[in-house]
Amino acid sequence: MQKMKDLILENGTYLGSGILKVDSFINHQVDPSFMMACGEEFARLFSSVNATRILTAEISGIAPAITTGLAMDIPVVFARKSKPVTMPDQVYLTIAPSHTKGINVELIVSPEYLGEGERVLIIDDFLASGSTIMGLVRLIKAAGATLVGIGALIEKDFEGGRELLSPLGVLIESLACITHMDEHGIVLKD
Amino acid sequence: MQKMKDLILENGTYLGSGILKVDSFINHQVDPSFMMACGEEFARLFSSVNATRILTAEISGIAPAITTGLAMDIPVVFARKSKPVTMPDQVYLTIAPSHTKGINVELIVSPEYLGEGERVLIIDDFLASGSTIMGLVRLIKAAGATLVGIGALIEKDFEGGRELLSPLGVLIESLACITHMDEHGIVLKD
Repeated sequence: MQKMKDLILENGTYLGSGILKVDSFINHQVDPSFMMACGEEFARLFSSVNATRILTAEISGIAPAITTGLAMDIPVVFARKSKPVTMPDQVYLTIAPSHTKGINVELIVSPEYLGEGERVLIIDDFLASGSTIMGLVRLIKAAGATLVGIGALIEKDFEGGRELLSPLGVLIESLACITHMDEHGIVLKD
Repeated sequence: MQKMKDLILENGTYLGSGILKVDSFINHQVDPSFMMACGEEFARLFSSVNATRILTAEISGIAPAITTGLAMDIPVVFARKSKPVTMPDQVYLTIAPSHTKGINVELIVSPEYLGEGERVLIIDDFLASGSTIMGLVRLIKAAGATLVGIGALIEKDFEGGRELLSPLGVLIESLACITHMDEHGIVLKD
């Protein structure tokens, strides 16, 4: 998606240690019209998978998940990272290491909103090491639902996420793919 | 907004201690089309305030903020509750007590995305005690920006939030207002 590539090159900042700052359009400030265009692009890319539900991880996955859900007209569930008092005692819970935070993060979904028979499309902001997304996949399996696709706004090609997730045998799409980044700049796949 | 009232009465659950569970349509699962209708309603209610920016608090505020931003065609900033590595050292930070979590929560905004001259509309999921929203108001003032309105999906009339915020002198709107709730049921304002 050309606009995503342009925004990364114009406004993305490499902070070292594999960290890309995209706070101005994904992780802190969001242009809703651009995010809607991303949702429409995901809806186009995943038009053949017959998804009935979108799963994302709070926090920065929520905006693209909502706009994709709007474009596809299906519900969105966001996995929580701490268990709210409103959740039942029995939940699906898994642990995923967070590269950017350097800690393990819990991902929690209530069985009320993820069940057998659902065809689940995962939408998240980044596909990097794939560990967060693999955590969401475990929640989908625990619920007896079916994973039908994985979409990320930005992929970091060099962190191995696609290799980790490819054996799942579903369509994996990103709107921009970074092949290299260092203090000299960011290189995107054509 | 009639649909919000219907959803609260049909799917909201009172859990005691002033806690309303609305996980099926706000805090864990979201119907994007309904959330878009909420955004359009906020856009209508706040059409006269000339907002240039929406501010919300992560996590459950993000969905209504995005759809409101989409309807009004203005950017959304979500205050973070922990400082990501991508934020600069100097930030606007305030502390707000969380009623539902029983702890103090940090609300953090980068000066990069909230500045003087901005006319800021606050959108959040709940208006209860008003403490989170008042925290967002402090961030707006710290940035030298102007608060122009406050919108919440659900108001709890009996927790005093409106009384706390009214002296700010801006338009305060909620899409449904709960006047009473206990183990026997939920009562909404007409």
